[in-house]
Amino acid sequence: MTAQKTLGVAVIGTGRMGADHVRRLDEVIAGARVAAVVDIDAGRAKAVAERVDGCSAYTDAAAAMDDEGVDAVLIASPGPAHEAALLQALARDLPVLCEKPLTPDAASALRVVEAEARLGHRRVQVGFMRRYDPEYERLKTLLDEGAFGRTLMLHCVHRNAGTPPGFTSQMTINDSVVHEADAARWLLGQEITAVRVLRPTPSGRAPAGLDDPQLVLFETAGGALVDVEIFVNCGFGYQVRCEAVGEHGTARIGDAHGLCVNAAGRWGGEIAQDYVERFRDAYDREVRAWVDATRRGETTGPSAWDGYAAAAVCEAGVRAQATGERTPVGLAERPALYR
Amino acid sequence: MTAQKTLGVAVIGTGRMGADHVRRLDEVIAGARVAAVVDIDAGRAKAVAERVDGCSAYTDAAAAMDDEGVDAVLIASPGPAHEAALLQALARDLPVLCEKPLTPDAASALRVVEAEARLGHRRVQVGFMRRYDPEYERLKTLLDEGAFGRTLMLHCVHRNAGTPPGFTSQMTINDSVVHEADAARWLLGQEITAVRVLRPTPSGRAPAGLDDPQLVLFETAGGALVDVEIFVNCGFGYQVRCEAVGEHGTARIGDAHGLCVNAAGRWGGEIAQDYVERFRDAYDREVRAWVDATRRGETTGPSAWDGYAAAAVCEAGVRAQATGERTPVGLAERPALYR
Amino acid sequence: MTAQKTLGVAVIGTGRMGADHVRRLDEVIAGARVAAVVDIDAGRAKAVAERVDGCSAYTDAAAAMDDEGVDAVLIASPGPAHEAALLQALARDLPVLCEKPLTPDAASALRVVEAEARLGHRRVQVGFMRRYDPEYERLKTLLDEGAFGRTLMLHCVHRNAGTPPGFTSQMTINDSVVHEADAARWLLGQEITAVRVLRPTPSGRAPAGLDDPQLVLFETAGGALVDVEIFVNCGFGYQVRCEAVGEHGTARIGDAHGLCVNAAGRWGGEIAQDYVERFRDAYDREVRAWVDATRRGETTGPSAWDGYAAAAVCEAGVRAQATGERTPVGLAERPALYR
Amino acid sequence: MTAQKTLGVAVIGTGRMGADHVRRLDEVIAGARVAAVVDIDAGRAKAVAERVDGCSAYTDAAAAMDDEGVDAVLIASPGPAHEAALLQALARDLPVLCEKPLTPDAASALRVVEAEARLGHRRVQVGFMRRYDPEYERLKTLLDEGAFGRTLMLHCVHRNAGTPPGFTSQMTINDSVVHEADAARWLLGQEITAVRVLRPTPSGRAPAGLDDPQLVLFETAGGALVDVEIFVNCGFGYQVRCEAVGEHGTARIGDAHGLCVNAAGRWGGEIAQDYVERFRDAYDREVRAWVDATRRGETTGPSAWDGYAAAAVCEAGVRAQATGERTPVGLAERPALYR
Repeated sequence: MTAQKTLGVAVIGTGRMGADHVRRLDEVIAGARVAAVVDIDAGRAKAVAERVDGCSAYTDAAAAMDDEGVDAVLIASPGPAHEAALLQALARDLPVLCEKPLTPDAASALRVVEAEARLGHRRVQVGFMRRYDPEYERLKTLLDEGAFGRTLMLHCVHRNAGTPPGFTSQMTINDSVVHEADAARWLLGQEITAVRVLRPTPSGRAPAGLDDPQLVLFETAGGALVDVEIFVNCGFGYQVRCEAVGEHGTARIGDAHGLCVNAAGRWGGEIAQDYVERFRDAYDREVRAWVDATRRGETTGPSAWDGYAAAAVCEAGVRAQATGERTPVGLAERPALYR
Repeated sequence: MTAQKTLGVAVIGTGRMGADHVRRLDEVIAGARVAAVVDIDAGRAKAVAERVDGCSAYTDAAAAMDDEGVDAVLIASPGPAHEAALLQALARDLPVLCEKPLTPDAASALRVVEAEARLGHRRVQVGFMRRYDPEYERLKTLLDEGAFGRTLMLHCVHRNAGTPPGFTSQMTINDSVVHEADAARWLLGQEITAVRVLRPTPSGRAPAGLDDPQLVLFETAGGALVDVEIFVNCGFGYQVRCEAVGEHGTARIGDAHGLCVNAAGRWGGEIAQDYVERFRDAYDREVRAWVDATRRGETTGPSAWDGYAAAAVCEAGVRAQATGERTPVGLAERPALYR
Repeated sequence: MTAQKTLGVAVIGTGRMGADHVRRLDEVIAGARVAAVVDIDAGRAKAVAERVDGCSAYTDAAAAMDDEGVDAVLIASPGPAHEAALLQALARDLPVLCEKPLTPDAASALRVVEAEARLGHRRVQVGFMRRYDPEYERLKTLLDEGAFGRTLMLHCVHRNAGTPPGFTSQMTINDSVVHEADAARWLLGQEITAVRVLRPTPSGRAPAGLDDPQLVLFETAGGALVDVEIFVNCGFGYQVRCEAVGEHGTARIGDAHGLCVNAAGRWGGEIAQDYVERFRDAYDREVRAWVDATRRGETTGPSAWDGYAAAAVCEAGVRAQATGERTPVGLAERPALYR
Repeated sequence: MTAQKTLGVAVIGTGRMGADHVRRLDEVIAGARVAAVVDIDAGRAKAVAERVDGCSAYTDAAAAMDDEGVDAVLIASPGPAHEAALLQALARDLPVLCEKPLTPDAASALRVVEAEARLGHRRVQVGFMRRYDPEYERLKTLLDEGAFGRTLMLHCVHRNAGTPPGFTSQMTINDSVVHEADAARWLLGQEITAVRVLRPTPSGRAPAGLDDPQLVLFETAGGALVDVEIFVNCGFGYQVRCEAVGEHGTARIGDAHGLCVNAAGRWGGEIAQDYVERFRDAYDREVRAWVDATRRGETTGPSAWDGYAAAAVCEAGVRAQATGERTPVGLAERPALYR
C-alpha cells in the first residue's frame, strides 16, 4: 500500500504512441499523473494538455523537465530526438521510460550508456515491452529455473499482416527484429555475437524492393543459435511465436488460443491483427512496473545497455542483409553498472 | 481523458476480498482512492486504513458513507451484512459495487431490487466478475452477433482443486454454480426457469457428506438447456469452461493455453490453481469499469435484478439438490428499471 | 506369422455398408477372402460377386453359409434381417461379425444372446467400431489403468452435419446415441440403469418434427453419470467427443487436430464431414481384429450381450424421449458366458 | 475389386526392418504374399521363411529373384548391399520397393538411376514413408492447390529421444535429415541447391563427439528456404513438425494431439517415443500403395531420382557440416524418365 506521492510525468512526443501513453497514465495507471506534455507542434501539445487535469504544454523537453510538477520522463518522440532528451533527463537525474529504440544507432546509444554510467546509477528503462508480456515472463521463468537444462536454440516467428508505405528492408531489422534481438538476449542472458540474414525469393505480396520474408540467424556468446522468421506482409494477421529448445525439453509461446469456434466445416479462431491487440496488456504492465519502481526510487526493466546492445545487433543485421554474410556484432566493454 | 475528480470509495469489509479491493483501488486503478474502510473489527479496519494515504477507519458502514470524502461504496463484507449496507447506500443515492452474492437469499435480494426501483435509477453493480473476463466477453459478443444463430445449449465445467473445511453441498450451488447461473443468464439473455441436480456416486476425494461432483441442469425461458459439471475437489486445478452450441456452430472458451512444454515424454502446460490466478485480470477490469462508469455518473454491469435472479436460481437449485426433482424457479415481476 | 488358411467370408447384404466390407475384405485385409455374397436382389449380389475372384452370389443367407468355401459370416443387411441370419450362423457354429444394431429391439436381441449362450461359446462380434478407434482405445486404457481413480462422469458430444430425409427423433437414439450407449458401457465397464432425454427448443435447421439437438443422460450401475449432446443437424461437420472425469483427473478425446492453418485472419483447420472420414481406420481395424481372432479360433470384441444391452438402453431412451421422464433400463440376467 | 493374382514378394534382408516387412506383407497387406526371403545369414533366412506359408529361404538375392513365385522385390538389407540388388532387379525388370537410402552415396545412386533410365520405365520406389503419412499428404495437397500462394519457407523440426551407440554427426544428415531433404523436395516440387549446417554448443546429453542439435538450412531452385532443427538426443520423445509459410498463409503439421489429459496441475498428453509409433500407419500405407500399384503394373511413389537427389543433398550436407560453409548441391542432368 502506498504512502507515496503521485508521480508527475512529462510525456515527450504526443504522436500516436505518446498520446496513448498520456491516456494510459491518465486513465489506467494508478499513482501517476501527466504533469507535462512536450511536442514541437505547440498546437498538438496544447490540445493534449487541455484534456488532462493540471497538465502543462511545452515545445521544449528541457523546459518540461524543469517544470516543478515533473518527477519523471516518458520519451515517445521520434528516435532521432531520443539522445538529446535522454541526456537532458540524465543531467537532471530524472527517471526515464524511453520507447524503443533507445537511439537510432549504436554510437549514440553508447553515449547514453556512458552518461548513465558516469551518473553511477540506473535511471533509464527502455520500452522493450515484450518482457512484460505474461507468456514471455512465464517462458523466462522456466528457462531461468533450468527446467530444460541449458537453452540451445530459439525458434522465433514474427509476422505482420502488412506494412505501411515506405517500409524498407532495413526497417524489418531496426523496427521488427529488434524485438527478437532484445527477447533473445533477455531470455538467454547472453549477448548476440553474430548475425546472418537469408532471403528467399520475396513474396508476391511484398512491395517492390522489400525483402520479405527473411530468415535472420543470431549466434550468442554462450553458443546458442536463434532463428527468426520475419515476415511483415504475411497478409493474415499479427503473430509472435517463440520456442526455446533446451537440453531436456522445449517450451513454446505465441499459440495462445482463447476461444475456439466450430463453424462451416472448420475449427479454430481469430488471429490478432496488430501488436496493439496482441500486446495491449504488456504496455499497461510495462508502464505500471515503471511507475511502481520509480515511486520506490528504483530503476528496473530493460536498461540503456540493453538498448545499446540491440542497436549494435541491428547495425550488424543491416550489414548482414546487404552482404549476405555472417557479420560479427561488436560491443563496447560493459560498464560495471550493467553487470 | 479526464477532467473528473478522483472517486473516493468506502470499502466495507476488510477480510481477504476487501483487503484485495483496497490494494486494487489504491495501487492499480487510476481515478479512485480509498477514502474509508469499514470493519466490525476496529483494529483490522485501522490497520488497513493506516497503510493508505488519507483513509479513515470505521466500524459502522453508515458512518463511513457519511464521510465527506466518500463518493461510492464497495461492499466486500460477509453476505448476511449486504442487505443493510445496500439499503443504506441506496438511501444516500450512493453508487455501489457489491461483491456477490447480492444477498444470501431471494427474498432479501428482492427487497434491494425494490428499493432501487423506488429510487428510480440504477446505483448497484453486482460483482459477477466473469462478465469482465476477455474470453467471456468475446463469447458474449459472438453470440449477440448471431454468428451461430440462436443458442441452443451451453455446456459448462467448473472445477476447483479442493474445498476448505466446512464446505457444504449447498455451497456448491450458492458459491460456485451461482457464477454459471449468472453467466448463462447473461450469455443467453434469458431467465432460468427450472433447475435439476443429478449426483453420481461422490468422488473418494470428496469430504464426507459433500456431493461432489454434481451435474446441474438449467432450462431457460427461451427453451435453451444448460448443463454444468460442478466438481469442487477435482484435485488437479481450477478450470472454467463453457461451450455455446448454436444452430450453425459452436464456440468454446476456457482452454486458453499460453505456454506449451515438451518434456519427459509429455506435451502440455500448467493448469491455474485457483480463481485468483484465472480471473485476476477480470477483477481489475471489473473494478476499473465500475470506477469509470461511476465517474461518468452511470451504473453499468450486472444489476441488482441480476443478483436477485441468481439468488432465486440458487434457492431452486438447493431444493432440487435435496429432492432430485426438476424444480421451477419463481421470479417476481421484473421492474421497468431493469428491462 | 501365419500358417493359417485364408478365411472365407460370406457377406450378407450388399448395400452401401456391405459393399464397403466386400471391398475391405478383398483389397485391404490380409488373410481373408470374400467367398460368397448374399442379397435378396439377385442382380446386385451377382454384380458384386463377379468383381471378386472365386466369389459366389446367393439370395439366401443359409445357402451361402452352407457354401463349402465359407468359414465365417459378416452381416451387413438391414437390421430386421439380422436375427434370422444370426440364428442360422449360430446353428452352424459359424463366427459372425454383425453390423450394429445386433437386432432392432431388445427382445429379439435377447433371443440371439440366449441362442449363443446355449451354444456355450462366443461366436458373435457386434460392429461397435468405436472400440477400435485409436483415441477411444487410448482412453479405455487410461481409465482401466485407474490413472484418474474411479470414473465419475462422461461428457459426450455427437454431431452430424445433417440428416437424410425421413430421419426421426427415435433414430437419433437408435442409430446415433446407440454408439455412446455402447462406448459408455465399455469405457466404464458398467451397465446403464436409467435414461433421461431433455430437449431444448429445436434448431431452426432441424426438419419439422425432429427434436434436434437433445441432451441424453445415462445413469450407470456403478453410480456414474453420462451426458450426451446429440445434434444431428449441426451444419458444420461430424464431431465425436468424450471427456471422462475421474477422481483425480480428466481425459478428453475428439479434438485431434492434425493440420493447423493460419490464413485470412484465422487459425484452425478442417472438421471431418462424416463418420466415414472420422472412423475410416476404425472400420479397417475392426474387421482386421475380427479376421485375426477368427483365424485363431477366438471371438473377441463387442459381444451379443453388448448388442442386447445397447438395444435395451435405446428402447428406454425412446420411451424417455416420449415421456420426458427418467426411465429405468430393464435387463435380463446376464448369462455366465458374458461375465 | 481385384481379379488380379496375389503378388509374390522376395524380401531381401531379414533384420529388424526386413522382418517387419515380412510380417506386414504376410499379415496386414491384402493381395501380397512373401514368396522368398534372402539373408546372408542362412539360418536367419530359414527361420523367417518357416513361419510363412510357401516361403523359400535364400542367401543370394539373384537366386531369389529367379524363384518362379517371385513377382516383385522389397529391399531391406543394409545400404551398401542396395546397389547390387537394385541392378539385379532392374536387369530382370522386377518392381522394387527399396528402403531408404537408395544407396549410400550419390555416385552409386546415379548408377541406379541410369540403369532404370536405360530400361525406359520406372520400376523402383524408394522408401520415403513420410509421403504416405496422412498429415504430410494433407499438407502436400494444400500446397499444390496453391491455397497460400507460392511456398516461401519451410520450418522443420526432427527430434529423437536418443541415439544408439556409435551414432555420428554424419548419420544425423544421412539417416535423419535425409527425410527432411526428401520431404522438402516433394512438398515444394523443387530441387535443393545448397546446404548450410549451423551448430550451437552441443547439449550436455549428446554423446562426446556428436554435434547435437544442429540447424540445417536448404536453399531450393525456386528460391525457397528450409530450416531444419535436428536434435537426436532431445530426451523427451520423437517429434516431426513442419510448417509451410506461403504468401497468404501458413500450415503446420506434427502437433496432432489425440487425447488431452488434466491431472496433477497440468494439461496435455503423451509424446510418441519413436518413429515406429509416429509413422506406423505410414509404413502400412506405403507398402499397400506399392503392392496395389505393382499389381496394376505401375510404379508410383518416390523414384530412384528422388533417392539420388536425396543422396546428393546428404553428401553436400556432410561437407557443409565439416566446413561450416554454404555448400552447393551438384546434380546430374535429370533423365527424361523422371520429368
